[in-house]
Amino acid sequence: MKPLPKVLAFDVFGTVVDWHGSIATEVKRIGLNADPDAFATAWRNGYRPAMARVRSGELPWTKIDDLHRLILDGVLNEFAITHLSEDEKKHLNLVWHRLLPWEDTIAGLLRLKSKFTIVTLSNGNLGLLANMAKNAGLPWDLILSAEVFRHYKPDPETYLGVASTFDVTPEEVMLVAAHKDDLLAASKCGLQTAFIERPLEFGKNVQRDDLAIESFTSYHAKNFLDLADQLGCK
Amino acid sequence: MKPLPKVLAFDVFGTVVDWHGSIATEVKRIGLNADPDAFATAWRNGYRPAMARVRSGELPWTKIDDLHRLILDGVLNEFAITHLSEDEKKHLNLVWHRLLPWEDTIAGLLRLKSKFTIVTLSNGNLGLLANMAKNAGLPWDLILSAEVFRHYKPDPETYLGVASTFDVTPEEVMLVAAHKDDLLAASKCGLQTAFIERPLEFGKNVQRDDLAIESFTSYHAKNFLDLADQLGCK
Repeated sequence: MKPLPKVLAFDVFGTVVDWHGSIATEVKRIGLNADPDAFATAWRNGYRPAMARVRSGELPWTKIDDLHRLILDGVLNEFAITHLSEDEKKHLNLVWHRLLPWEDTIAGLLRLKSKFTIVTLSNGNLGLLANMAKNAGLPWDLILSAEVFRHYKPDPETYLGVASTFDVTPEEVMLVAAHKDDLLAASKCGLQTAFIERPLEFGKNVQRDDLAIESFTSYHAKNFLDLADQLGCK
Repeated sequence: MKPLPKVLAFDVFGTVVDWHGSIATEVKRIGLNADPDAFATAWRNGYRPAMARVRSGELPWTKIDDLHRLILDGVLNEFAITHLSEDEKKHLNLVWHRLLPWEDTIAGLLRLKSKFTIVTLSNGNLGLLANMAKNAGLPWDLILSAEVFRHYKPDPETYLGVASTFDVTPEEVMLVAAHKDDLLAASKCGLQTAFIERPLEFGKNVQRDDLAIESFTSYHAKNFLDLADQLGCK
């Protein structure tokens, strides 16, 4: 087993906050004529293709708020929702700033923070992550974003950027995420990794089949409290 | 009077933390053979010339930790201090990560945070500011740095960068600082401004003669508690 890391870098969407449940709740709350689960899934499904267009250079650097809006316009069209005003669309787009944490998130982060420096490493933009932290009470030591490095995950510049920010080696950083492709890319850069099971990330109707223990992850935890136990946090 | 801002962006060195007192204390604590006040002053005096070399393009982008070390080596030479090991020099250089807040800082920031988004806007690098916040308990909503914008203050990219980070107008941001050149540059970019008197910033032996009220500042406050009163924070 390697020595403990100094910095824990957290993926955010799905790992720290429940994007699917939060968006489905918002869709119900504002009375959109759409299946809330299907709407949340459609919006999120546009995410990777949109980022890929930035990573390939097809689009210039574009922050997630603007990508979310691009995707939202397509999803509203797909669901034939035409009655929203521009202000209502803007407010709906900012639901990503109001995503709510999983039940174990805050208590787990506070325990982990007592022993490690805890930071975000998210493709979300700084303003989004700061508003989310303020709204949800997420106790980050530092908010780091793809926006700082001008590269989206899984580009190596993001993982290695956390290490250089704190002037530590890559293996003194651990990526904590519910997504194996993210963890695999981090591990290829020399970071330690912790997989967090988030069985409900894609909603109650989707059974995840990717929760098995992998050889490339340093830790595998049910949730942040379990991770805090495994890392010896009080 | 303009409407209240949404985001308060704080200068850090001198405004939030007492660099002079913290460094003088460290110099005494480790028993350097130097006048603590003179040593602190000499170290800080190297700061602007070093940043000017980056701003002019003479040096490539260099983070403050590295500039501090460049300056420290010169100051140690100037004071004929030759006995420190490389590890001791590294530790001394990181005193900037351990600077302590003024007496009113934490209580003031907590009051201001209840009504506004509070962020740093410092030339200090992200790792330095994050370690300082963790060590001193500074409750930032977001740590922003020249490092994010790849420009040092007083370049306009820094002040306008805060506004674009939060997708607000420049006048919805207020720079809070103890330095009038910083405030003047921010005000030229359309930001609101608050001057904070920090009469002891340069130590007990230096009487500041620049504490008068200026026409270009939106607010003028004795300290953060006074500013919280003026901005109607509970």
